Amino acid sequence: MSDFKRPDSGILIIFGAGGDLTWRKLLPAMYDLYVENFLPDNVAIVGLDRKDMTDKAFRKRAKDGVETFSRFKDTLKEQWKDFEEKLHYLTGEVDSDATYDLLSEKLSSIDKVWEGETNHMFYLATPPFLIEPISKGLATSHLLDAEDRTRIVVEKPFGHDLASAKELNDKLLQYCPETQIYRIDHYLGKETVQNILAFRFANALFEPVWDRRYIDHVQITVAESVGVGHRGGYYDHAGALRDMVQNHLMQILCLVAMEPPVSFGAEEIRSRKVDVLRAIRPVEPEDVFDVTARGQYDDGWVQGEHVPAYKQEEDVAKRSSTETFAALKLHVDNWRWRGVPFYLRSGKRLTERVSEVVIRFKPVPHQAFPSGASQFEPNDVVIHLQPDEGISVDIQAKKPGLGMRLGAVDMHFSYNEAFHQPSPEAYETLLLDVFRGDATLFMRSDQVELAWAIVMPILQTWAASEDIDNYDAGTWGPDSATELIARDGRSWLRPRRLNTHHESKRESKEHASSSKGEH
Amino acid sequence: MSDFKRPDSGILIIFGAGGDLTWRKLLPAMYDLYVENFLPDNVAIVGLDRKDMTDKAFRKRAKDGVETFSRFKDTLKEQWKDFEEKLHYLTGEVDSDATYDLLSEKLSSIDKVWEGETNHMFYLATPPFLIEPISKGLATSHLLDAEDRTRIVVEKPFGHDLASAKELNDKLLQYCPETQIYRIDHYLGKETVQNILAFRFANALFEPVWDRRYIDHVQITVAESVGVGHRGGYYDHAGALRDMVQNHLMQILCLVAMEPPVSFGAEEIRSRKVDVLRAIRPVEPEDVFDVTARGQYDDGWVQGEHVPAYKQEEDVAKRSSTETFAALKLHVDNWRWRGVPFYLRSGKRLTERVSEVVIRFKPVPHQAFPSGASQFEPNDVVIHLQPDEGISVDIQAKKPGLGMRLGAVDMHFSYNEAFHQPSPEAYETLLLDVFRGDATLFMRSDQVELAWAIVMPILQTWAASEDIDNYDAGTWGPDSATELIARDGRSWLRPRRLNTHHESKRESKEHASSSKGEH
Repeated sequence: MSDFKRPDSGILIIFGAGGDLTWRKLLPAMYDLYVENFLPDNVAIVGLDRKDMTDKAFRKRAKDGVETFSRFKDTLKEQWKDFEEKLHYLTGEVDSDATYDLLSEKLSSIDKVWEGETNHMFYLATPPFLIEPISKGLATSHLLDAEDRTRIVVEKPFGHDLASAKELNDKLLQYCPETQIYRIDHYLGKETVQNILAFRFANALFEPVWDRRYIDHVQITVAESVGVGHRGGYYDHAGALRDMVQNHLMQILCLVAMEPPVSFGAEEIRSRKVDVLRAIRPVEPEDVFDVTARGQYDDGWVQGEHVPAYKQEEDVAKRSSTETFAALKLHVDNWRWRGVPFYLRSGKRLTERVSEVVIRFKPVPHQAFPSGASQFEPNDVVIHLQPDEGISVDIQAKKPGLGMRLGAVDMHFSYNEAFHQPSPEAYETLLLDVFRGDATLFMRSDQVELAWAIVMPILQTWAASEDIDNYDAGTWGPDSATELIARDGRSWLRPRRLNTHHESKRESKEHASSSKGEH
Repeated sequence: MSDFKRPDSGILIIFGAGGDLTWRKLLPAMYDLYVENFLPDNVAIVGLDRKDMTDKAFRKRAKDGVETFSRFKDTLKEQWKDFEEKLHYLTGEVDSDATYDLLSEKLSSIDKVWEGETNHMFYLATPPFLIEPISKGLATSHLLDAEDRTRIVVEKPFGHDLASAKELNDKLLQYCPETQIYRIDHYLGKETVQNILAFRFANALFEPVWDRRYIDHVQITVAESVGVGHRGGYYDHAGALRDMVQNHLMQILCLVAMEPPVSFGAEEIRSRKVDVLRAIRPVEPEDVFDVTARGQYDDGWVQGEHVPAYKQEEDVAKRSSTETFAALKLHVDNWRWRGVPFYLRSGKRLTERVSEVVIRFKPVPHQAFPSGASQFEPNDVVIHLQPDEGISVDIQAKKPGLGMRLGAVDMHFSYNEAFHQPSPEAYETLLLDVFRGDATLFMRSDQVELAWAIVMPILQTWAASEDIDNYDAGTWGPDSATELIARDGRSWLRPRRLNTHHESKRESKEHASSSKGEH
């Protein structure tokens, strides 16, 4: 994340090269990096899967993915020919020694042509149960021996709970040290997520008020309007807390709450995040239903379309009690945050797709203004993660007109308006970091385990009761989520689009605590 | 400023009713207040001047002014008929007892028709030397006797120096108490100037960083592109320091620097402003040339038009050494501001007409970002007073793209975008306040005298030397102004338009310290 020179020669080896992630994300991202001239001159991609396929067929499939998903698809005519020559394909079973011999041979044959040393990056775009056999195979074939030139990239989920996460980490660490392991949480590769650190630590204006003295509470929302889609088989055993909260939302919380780092080195940034996780007050089993809410979507209307209930989705158990919505209140018990609640919520089939962080400030300590001047709304700093990207600050200003009346306005900057260049895809950022050997945006084993430890009491208590709330698809989740925050005298703030700034917008901003699952 | 009910019955008596101010500002503002329904049902305007004129002629002239300058000129057809009946005219010399008898009679005849009590507001739209005879005439005729229902409104300049200001105040106070005197500084009636208080004290986000710990320095710029016009006779005996700095800029400084008020009561706000003036470090005569700069415009090009030098202007002495540009550095020696310089500048025939306050923050205490990430620009809060109206905050954000690079962006709100209603004219605000008896936005005698006391050593030292710098019309003033701030390792920030927010804007923001008077 901190280095600007092009990385050294490298080969990206993709296990699961025939899969969806490779087609949809990894190869388009590699192509985009290539077009932008971020890749080394000596670069190769070796795809590996059990399916029999020629180099030619692999390249054809890769082209199809790039044509569909690349940011630079209009450059294919000029650049594809050269790029596709870097693609190779090997067929093999991951539990067969022959596969690793074949791979070893292939890598040597590529390395041989290049001068100097080469980085080998093994990307495991595979289901979690293959992580162990592949890392074992690589280690046994001495493919991981060059510690500083060899990396394993692992996709989420990292375990199903604390125990399985620990087991997975232990297995991985048998075959290579932590410094070689790159656990991807693609959320951390997003521009706007990275910008949280820039916003906080490159500006002198906000950090002095970024604590319990001035902040009332924090809300983190990651809302999806889609349903479970074709992932029902996996999702029905996971649920929103595992699928979104334990990883993405918890990482966002860390970025919002962390102490200023000494540097942007990988160990420093990750250690400051771990400090936050360590400070999160454990949820006692008897408190779980006081500080959490869960729900499952019923059928309903999302953006004009009637959509089925979760239980009617493909590969979902007809009597499933898996949550598709999770909300929780956390406390960070340290000097900076003591007493400031963090409210997190995430769900599927909500009103709209939107991710944002709201930092709500306390009211001004003394209202000097005449009593008729205003409803005295507190300031909000809103970090818009998606689909809008930017930051807005809600403030009060004098309304034009005679007499001192206050009105809410927002100051904002939008990535689109401010910078006339599109943001790279998260996978571009992360793959380039793997090439560079920069692990800042990747999950260290202690981060993963601490995040699991935080949600374990909730998972266990929820599992012991099948009594889950329903919510209509197209709403903002179950009533229990409204009640969770209303018990503290607060309410969820309706996510707003970045570029609308009308005087009246604020009035409709607080969700009405009405019935029908709307909040 | 704090009251929303319509004021009680009232008569505005204008001395100097035949003059430019009445025609251009006072009558159009009164008409606009009338159209907006802010005036009482029982309202009358009595114009008085030495020139013989009928009510009818006065009304015709008033209509002409309203047609030219009113914000609501398109309502004339429906509303003028009713409004003009409220206009009356009297002919009289201000030093003749007969005039006050006539006036007294007129006021009684109007009052008699109305039920209840009436406010009488005497607006002295006259040269300063008439203030004494008029107030004496009013007092002698017992027209000022009803202390809480009688006000005298006085236009600037309030004296030519500290001694004359004191003399003027003393004379006024002979005839009525301070609470009846409303000294107008029309700058304080501007929406955006009033908004400084709203911005600071209705938002919890900014006040905690509004002090010496976080702010590096403050710049206040009031730049005009026009020359001295037809005011050469007056201006050549005044100069920029008297005409702009001693009043407008000093008042803006007070609003930026004052402590939070207990309330928005007139005495409270004005006392907090006086506290600031009292804390300003006196400029020692021997330091004057170190902490000030002055200049006089030469001929040059302003917005495509060739314009003459100041010395060629109408009614200006051919060897004049009057300054048309003044810059100075002040210190506010109190707990909040010790060590934070306030740089003020104002001038005629500068590059453009723009007024703004820049609060420049200190750099972040520790730069954790990689060294290639940025030039680490500090945050600016910019309060745009005119012609743009609004506030912008310059911050650093992560530039889209791979690697952590920072770019300057601004968050802003603009009055025009945020509120879909135009700002009232300053004179509307101030006249309505006079009707309401709210003196918050008016200058108390101690404010005036303290502001004079601050500039006296500068005026005296400058007067002792005729060695004034020239600057080309259309530039940002003399080299000596650039040097004044450059000696502290800083530079004037080029005023920017509110609604342009491009990545590249910042690069051209700092003035190049080039020759030719540009800075």
